[in-house]
This record gives sequence, structure tokens and C-alpha cells, in this order.
Amino acid sequence: MKERSAQSTWRSVCPISSGLDILGDRWSLLIIRDLIEHTTRTYSQFTEAPEKISTNILADRLRLLSDLGIIEHVEPDKALRNNAYQLTTSGKALKPVLLSLGRWSHTYLSEYHPTMRSID
Amino acid sequence: MKERSAQSTWRSVCPISSGLDILGDRWSLLIIRDLIEHTTRTYSQFTEAPEKISTNILADRLRLLSDLGIIEHVEPDKALRNNAYQLTTSGKALKPVLLSLGRWSHTYLSEYHPTMRSID
Repeated sequence: MKERSAQSTWRSVCPISSGLDILGDRWSLLIIRDLIEHTTRTYSQFTEAPEKISTNILADRLRLLSDLGIIEHVEPDKALRNNAYQLTTSGKALKPVLLSLGRWSHTYLSEYHPTMRSID
Repeated sequence: MKERSAQSTWRSVCPISSGLDILGDRWSLLIIRDLIEHTTRTYSQFTEAPEKISTNILADRLRLLSDLGIIEHVEPDKALRNNAYQLTTSGKALKPVLLSLGRWSHTYLSEYHPTMRSID
């Protein structure tokens, strides 16, 4: 079993706050969104998403999400290219969280963002 | 009807990304969490939460959430103190998003954060 570094910046004992400590920087959840949509994703494919994640933030978040067991490397013989990532069981369990956020956005933010597409 | 400023920094047409443009800075959702738990909250009460939001971030996020119709001022005659806020219908609709995030955290992050309490 690989060594995992502990997240040392928990701000409180609240589980909602703790989830946001990891996911609330908006970039982490976009990485997870891409993996829900595409199943596997390489480093360079992540940078092609329309939100334009910077390479230093991407590298930092991939390391954090890996350390916390949310994403993992795809076995090299199964990956089309090196350094592809996929969701673990923990990461896949975030799918309903993201979908409910997307449904809320489409219902309540479309007024402010008319070109928003509907949730798939 | 009060004037609302438009959010001008939508990064894409994706509804999940758009939700994160508003809520993905971790502080906005903590304000909403406090209002779910306490129904109304004054400016100074928000600063007493254990996550220690700074006053300049609090003021900025209260304005943003108000502009987007997610929170609103409590009518002065119903508030114990001035400047109390409450959730609108839009804000209340975020409750299932936050609860599902809290449940996920408690299930998958407790290993890294042993003192986390369970979701209420």
C-alpha cells in the first residue's frame, strides 16, 4: 500500500467544512468532473478543458487528490498514454454531489448566465 | 425589484463549473452552511464560526451571494439585530448539495481527519 500524506489544514471538525477544505478551491472538483465524464484523463488532456487550469495548480491538485485516495494512476498497460488518472471508489462517490450542484446551477443561475447548458 | 449585478467571470457553459464559479471558493458555502443551521445570521455571528472567515472576504461574499439572489437581508422588524441575513429559495435549494458533500466527507475523509464529527 502506498504511503499517503495527511491533509494538515482541516479548519474544523465539521464534515461539510472538511469536504470544502479539499474540494472547495473549484479546481479539484473540475478535475473530478473531467474524470466522471471521460473515465480516464492524462495530464495534458486536463489542461485542454475550457476552464484553463494552470499547470502548477493541476500538478498540485492531482497530488492532493492522489494522496487522499480520490484519484489514482491508471495501470500503464491499460492507459493509452502515460500518466493517465482515474477515479477511485471515493472519487466516484462524488458524482451525485457534482450532479446536484449542476442541477442547482442550471435552475438558479441561468438568469445570470444565459448561455449555460443544461446538466447532462 | 432590486438591481442585481451580473457575475462576469463564468469560465465556461458547464453548469457544474458555473456553480463552482460562485460556490467553489469554500467561503461562500460556509456562509450558506451557517444559514442552513441557524436560519438567520448577523455579520458578527458569521465571524464567530470556527473556520475564522476574514472580514473582507465575508463582506465580499455576502455581497456576491446577495447579488445572485442566494441570500437576502432579513426584514429589520423581524431581525434581532441589524444586518441579519437569511437564505432565499435559491439558497435553501443548496441544502441537499451541502448535505451530500458532508456525507461523502464523513465516509471517505475520516481516515485523514479522525476528529471529524458525523453529519447532522
